[in-house]
Amino acid sequence: MTDLAQYTNRQIRLASRPVGRPNASNWQHTSEPVQPPEPGGIVVQNLSLSLDPAMRGWMNEGKSYIAPVAIGDVMRAGGVGRVIASQNPRFAVGDHVSGALGVQEFASIPESAIKAGTPTHIDLKQGTLNQWLNVLGMPGMTGYFGLLDVGQPKPGETVVISGAAGAVGQTVGQLAKIKGCRVIGIAGGKAKCDFVTKDLGFDGCIDYKAGPSAIRDGLKLHAGNGVDVYFDNVGGDILDDVLARLARKARVIICGAVSQYNNTEPVQGPKNYLSLLVNRARMEGIVVFDYADRYPIAVAELAGHLRSGRIKSREHVERGLSTFPTALTKLFTGENFGKLVLQVAEDDGTRIP
Amino acid sequence: MTDLAQYTNRQIRLASRPVGRPNASNWQHTSEPVQPPEPGGIVVQNLSLSLDPAMRGWMNEGKSYIAPVAIGDVMRAGGVGRVIASQNPRFAVGDHVSGALGVQEFASIPESAIKAGTPTHIDLKQGTLNQWLNVLGMPGMTGYFGLLDVGQPKPGETVVISGAAGAVGQTVGQLAKIKGCRVIGIAGGKAKCDFVTKDLGFDGCIDYKAGPSAIRDGLKLHAGNGVDVYFDNVGGDILDDVLARLARKARVIICGAVSQYNNTEPVQGPKNYLSLLVNRARMEGIVVFDYADRYPIAVAELAGHLRSGRIKSREHVERGLSTFPTALTKLFTGENFGKLVLQVAEDDGTRIP
Repeated sequence: MTDLAQYTNRQIRLASRPVGRPNASNWQHTSEPVQPPEPGGIVVQNLSLSLDPAMRGWMNEGKSYIAPVAIGDVMRAGGVGRVIASQNPRFAVGDHVSGALGVQEFASIPESAIKAGTPTHIDLKQGTLNQWLNVLGMPGMTGYFGLLDVGQPKPGETVVISGAAGAVGQTVGQLAKIKGCRVIGIAGGKAKCDFVTKDLGFDGCIDYKAGPSAIRDGLKLHAGNGVDVYFDNVGGDILDDVLARLARKARVIICGAVSQYNNTEPVQGPKNYLSLLVNRARMEGIVVFDYADRYPIAVAELAGHLRSGRIKSREHVERGLSTFPTALTKLFTGENFGKLVLQVAEDDGTRIP
Repeated sequence: MTDLAQYTNRQIRLASRPVGRPNASNWQHTSEPVQPPEPGGIVVQNLSLSLDPAMRGWMNEGKSYIAPVAIGDVMRAGGVGRVIASQNPRFAVGDHVSGALGVQEFASIPESAIKAGTPTHIDLKQGTLNQWLNVLGMPGMTGYFGLLDVGQPKPGETVVISGAAGAVGQTVGQLAKIKGCRVIGIAGGKAKCDFVTKDLGFDGCIDYKAGPSAIRDGLKLHAGNGVDVYFDNVGGDILDDVLARLARKARVIICGAVSQYNNTEPVQGPKNYLSLLVNRARMEGIVVFDYADRYPIAVAELAGHLRSGRIKSREHVERGLSTFPTALTKLFTGENFGKLVLQVAEDDGTRIP
């Protein structure tokens, strides 16, 4: 068993609740010695952490699909890592795992969490560590069940995806192509649009930064017969523009609203929501945790597509725990290109300063 | 066959498209002689016309679920009447019918319309003429299929209905009671609330005119465990307040948005729409015409409930074709109490001046 006394666990804790976009003052950097695992527990060295728009919601007070992070607590984050000490027969030192590891370098997981199902083993033959945070992780699961279970796309239908170059959007679009749909992405800038059309094989992409009527013009061009499925990661004006072009019996999947998360004003409601009436369409939310018992099915299918090359993945890797506060804001400026991950140690466990 | 030459057909035509609430200047009163039916056609004397919030939408230009009424055309309206001349073997003089009769005293129906399915025979043993515009008519069909097909309520669930004392709301609430749900209405004023609780048997009613926090307080009281099904006829702030209290996996049926129809501003989008995400809930539009092939099933069930007294109906009857412009505005002020109908002739055909 690794000598834990050699390690200090650096951590990032929520110091205050942000108003608008999070900044340095919302975070507290702490460190503490790594303790041996509790009876039945394990200690994981975190290797890569998942940075997601949903984190912004967890920083707010109030009822949501998950409890808020308490002031003073280590910030919640999904991550992948390696077991370095174990008092639990289900985990051996050296095992690779994925779970709620937190924004820190080491995670002490109690037996109760293990019994509740986190972390889980991951198999690096199915995908790289970072792919386990992307296509094979929460974003991939969200895309898979959001598109297939909520969106129910049929071959030949037109599927539009906002945040197309992002973590969830990548999986949604490539999976919709595999299911025989016409797939149009919405992304910010030419580079991201080129990526989703040329690298990921989408049928078209609309650059929302190209001008105030870019979305409306782009939808007219690419979705002339209407949008059958819209997978929404952004909300705001883009949601309204897509609502205005729904096809009969369309399905709108509400996965997120990254344009609204840092609002200090109330959320912008979709003024075109009556398009749901005119088109007998449906708008429905997805929370990925509801599908936990079916993750293995989705992982098996998506890992197969990764192996065959039918699904590609792109991660945007930031390095070093201390860069977390600035890395996180990239999600809200669109500076990340691909799934944003924060690598806090090399794959072999060498720590990144 | 009746001597048609004795009749002049008074009509109300759309003179201009309203900005905001319709007023007298939007209407043109005309009259023309009643002509004998075309080959294959019939002439109907209109007895009662259905006045509905949806009419406001038909007065606007632009794409919707149905073409707008053209300037100069007789205003579109559903109605019930009696065949007074027929060149069609499916209709005999004296038959009672329901269909798109228009805001006029006589409707000349061409063979093409009959082939397309309007009008249809109605059986006065199943309900009165006015009930055929209410529970057995479009509002009843809308409530029936909106609640059962889109809302899919389960016994024990909490169903909330705005416009509860109105045409659609009456059917929805009583049907939800029959299906074993807890039913909470939202209506304007004590009289309407008393009606839906005491006469119609709803479990509770929230008077939205009782103060700015009336809906929020009322939902806390009556729907403490959340709203499973919300049948929305009104939109606006009430929709937002209900969204804030959805239960997990709730269904929101978008039937109309009468609070928004006379807006000169853009429609007020529901700023709490992300409650759909948090609660994995669904918001879906209904257009009754989609269910036309199943109307007979719904009519049979609802007529049975009318006969047994399990469903009651209330109509607000205005009299005389020329009162149409003022009668219509009652839908937008909430002055009507029950399904608004405009009787243009007595049941025996005596014309109302």
